[in-house]
Amino acid sequence: MNQIIGNRLSGEGNRTFRAFDPQKQQWLPLEFKEATPGEIDDAVKLAAQAFTVYKKVPAQQRAAFLEAIATGITALGDELITTASAESGLPLARLQGERDRTTGQLRLFATMISEGSWVNARIDKATPDVRQMQIPLGVTGIFGASNFPLAFSVAGGDTAAALAAGCTVVFKAHPAHPHTSYLVANVIRTAANDTGMPEGVFSLLHGAAIDTGQQLAVHPQLSAIAFTGSFRGGKALYDTATRRAVPIPVYAEMGSVNPVFFLPRALKEKGETLAAQFLQSLTMGVGQFCTNPGVFITPAEEGPFLNTLQKGIAAMPTGCMLTPGILEAYNSGINSLRQAGARLLGAASATAHQASPALLQVNATQVLDNPSLCHEVFGPSSLHISTSSKEELFRLADALEGQLTATIHGTEEDLREYAELVNILREKAGRIVINGFPTGVAVNHAMVHGGPWPATTPAAGTSVGSAAIYRFCRPVCYQDFPAYLLPPELQDENPLGIWRLLNGNFSKT
Amino acid sequence: MNQIIGNRLSGEGNRTFRAFDPQKQQWLPLEFKEATPGEIDDAVKLAAQAFTVYKKVPAQQRAAFLEAIATGITALGDELITTASAESGLPLARLQGERDRTTGQLRLFATMISEGSWVNARIDKATPDVRQMQIPLGVTGIFGASNFPLAFSVAGGDTAAALAAGCTVVFKAHPAHPHTSYLVANVIRTAANDTGMPEGVFSLLHGAAIDTGQQLAVHPQLSAIAFTGSFRGGKALYDTATRRAVPIPVYAEMGSVNPVFFLPRALKEKGETLAAQFLQSLTMGVGQFCTNPGVFITPAEEGPFLNTLQKGIAAMPTGCMLTPGILEAYNSGINSLRQAGARLLGAASATAHQASPALLQVNATQVLDNPSLCHEVFGPSSLHISTSSKEELFRLADALEGQLTATIHGTEEDLREYAELVNILREKAGRIVINGFPTGVAVNHAMVHGGPWPATTPAAGTSVGSAAIYRFCRPVCYQDFPAYLLPPELQDENPLGIWRLLNGNFSKT
Repeated sequence: MNQIIGNRLSGEGNRTFRAFDPQKQQWLPLEFKEATPGEIDDAVKLAAQAFTVYKKVPAQQRAAFLEAIATGITALGDELITTASAESGLPLARLQGERDRTTGQLRLFATMISEGSWVNARIDKATPDVRQMQIPLGVTGIFGASNFPLAFSVAGGDTAAALAAGCTVVFKAHPAHPHTSYLVANVIRTAANDTGMPEGVFSLLHGAAIDTGQQLAVHPQLSAIAFTGSFRGGKALYDTATRRAVPIPVYAEMGSVNPVFFLPRALKEKGETLAAQFLQSLTMGVGQFCTNPGVFITPAEEGPFLNTLQKGIAAMPTGCMLTPGILEAYNSGINSLRQAGARLLGAASATAHQASPALLQVNATQVLDNPSLCHEVFGPSSLHISTSSKEELFRLADALEGQLTATIHGTEEDLREYAELVNILREKAGRIVINGFPTGVAVNHAMVHGGPWPATTPAAGTSVGSAAIYRFCRPVCYQDFPAYLLPPELQDENPLGIWRLLNGNFSKT
Repeated sequence: MNQIIGNRLSGEGNRTFRAFDPQKQQWLPLEFKEATPGEIDDAVKLAAQAFTVYKKVPAQQRAAFLEAIATGITALGDELITTASAESGLPLARLQGERDRTTGQLRLFATMISEGSWVNARIDKATPDVRQMQIPLGVTGIFGASNFPLAFSVAGGDTAAALAAGCTVVFKAHPAHPHTSYLVANVIRTAANDTGMPEGVFSLLHGAAIDTGQQLAVHPQLSAIAFTGSFRGGKALYDTATRRAVPIPVYAEMGSVNPVFFLPRALKEKGETLAAQFLQSLTMGVGQFCTNPGVFITPAEEGPFLNTLQKGIAAMPTGCMLTPGILEAYNSGINSLRQAGARLLGAASATAHQASPALLQVNATQVLDNPSLCHEVFGPSSLHISTSSKEELFRLADALEGQLTATIHGTEEDLREYAELVNILREKAGRIVINGFPTGVAVNHAMVHGGPWPATTPAAGTSVGSAAIYRFCRPVCYQDFPAYLLPPELQDENPLGIWRLLNGNFSKT
């Protein structure tokens, strides 16, 4: 199986790889060719050509393209789900849900660009007359994540946002699910043809080694990068992109430990329930969510909470991780924590080739002395941090690195007493959850899936929700343009009927 | 004269410098101490402390602070204007206008944050309930520009935007106008005290060498940098900031040659008028605007336009530049262009210590072979690029680097025939001007003063106009927050009466 460059299948290279079925513990039969430097160049050049056409395609037609992708994905039926399951070890039901999320995201962006107000049109009628709107950046290089083979992969949120904005996409498939990637990319190719989009609006490249992505990242015709994955991978792309002759933005979502704070009265009132819910959140999807609660913090008196957790964790099922490499990293992450002084609170009993959910424990002093204890261990483990006073709890919160999410469980009295905690966490995370759990990221207009470094770079973006589109845009200002040269979004008559900031006031006229 | 760190004057260092009066060609008497590493650290730490308070100050009070700064600047009266003139060589009338622009900017932000809709509140009432708004980034390091000692300096657009957003500011004064900087910083200090702002919301640091700025840029408690100045200076800050352990955004406005395209019919119909207007724009402020037209392009048949320019340039007055170093760089920039094959079309006669406006000429082939011909020469010179065909003109436009502005002069027939030029330039510039000149940047809601690299980094920001505030913000999402913990912007009752995206629809309820 080969790259999809526009409408062309291309397999020029010699380096091949196969995916691994982690459930069956066997290599899958299909062989994939890694993209060559020439193929990467071809894909970006074709995307750059396509951009000159695609950026002018009216929003209604771009929306139809997104809708056609959604329809095509659904039409793949069981083949997509079973393929993704074989390549990821994820259960069928979970993947069916993820498919619906993926098509839902595409339709959210389709609806939004059809309506049109998202371009943030601003018009100041004066001398000179100036009019601003968001325009697409150009060719985007998007990197698929392993843990959501549909929703954060080929036709996932980044691709949907970039295509909605008017950018063209060169997609670097994650090597753990190349066949799934191929199936979805082929849907996008067909949808592009069926809705009259220019060839090259989307291309798919395979690569098992880091150099495919690096070669893509340095291409002079690339305008932006989106990535979801490890800190190491994201940081490498960030370093490459910021050192180019012409630097480009990198929107990397690099992970997070998503601290959960349990406050005293909540623990007292419903410690056992919270423990059960926490274990549920921790082990959901074998802990392979970006928003998995990898750290939790309690005050001095925990009540029955910790005992319930300890009993509960021993009874949790082991689970199949996405790849053998991820399982290995999980186990070695736990070992590193123990070597660094964390105590094993409890773990599910071991099963071959499966991840055992585990709880570890340190106290706040240990973390304040050694912040690397709070580095992410991807998988179903969580580190308990005990604190001895409210002041220490605040100091610990203040010492945390940037996070995608931060969560507080508390009664009203708790929350009023610990109001400062909300203030501290607002500086640390992109999303703050009260009396809930961080796993589960709603796809809507208000969601933020991003946060201060090292959660993402830059913190001003979100990779989930409709605001994700702004990562692929910049504003342009038209000064003293005659009516016939203005885009419809900025014409006096407001032919699209969109909301605009007209002389400083929101208006639909 | 010393640093202003919060309410404290501090002069710990031994390194001193003085400003130079470029009109009188003499050093000014006041001696300024460069900030020491300890003073830089003090200022940022105090700003970080102040941020914990300032970020909670209601918008109405932040607005009162901005208003008080504006009032204070006006109250400085002639002292400010004469001081700025002595330190910059800029005429009094120009500085009076710049002062009004500066106070106008402060008031624009004050009005905007008083109204409140700028926070882009987004509310999705569902399960979970998620609510998003923009929050301030933290401590910002802002670098003053030499060419606008008021409007892009201590209380200029960057400071106004950052303070409006809720960020605290450590300001690195430009060494060419330290006394002007001191006067304005003192106004901000007084305004902060008068309106009850926390000490350290603003501090002023002096430094004549590059290391002051570099030490500021690496401070771990700094959250963002804004800079207006040379490509070299901005690039150095960008490199420093992106290589920190925790990278921070740099909003650097690094200059531009602001190409002006003259199309055939416009040249034929009013070539002489355009020539006169062009010379006006070129020499305004001795060519020391970021938006100065440093390059202009004509089609094969120029008519009387070039002859008029040639005659006109010889008659233009010479002018006093901001500093001897800038004058030297201007003269050496012209020499470099000539050595690289540019022909001198004409120049004003030389005057000692003054810049002579000059026109140089190359053809498109020379530029396509050697793009560095289009690097900025800061001052009143412009490079004429002759093209031999429409295709060559498009090719040339396509080869341009990123720009703050791009301008087209054409009749309706020209503009329809050259519609592709608008398309090309949209990818090159933050602002496109039709039948005008790029100098003169309106301060309003729709302005974009930014553009693709190397004009600015990143291209998604603007340093002029109300949208400049978003550079100093990031979104945060509140999930399932009880009413008593929500900020007013996100409460159900909408107590501030702001525009919000409520379940996907703009609404004031």
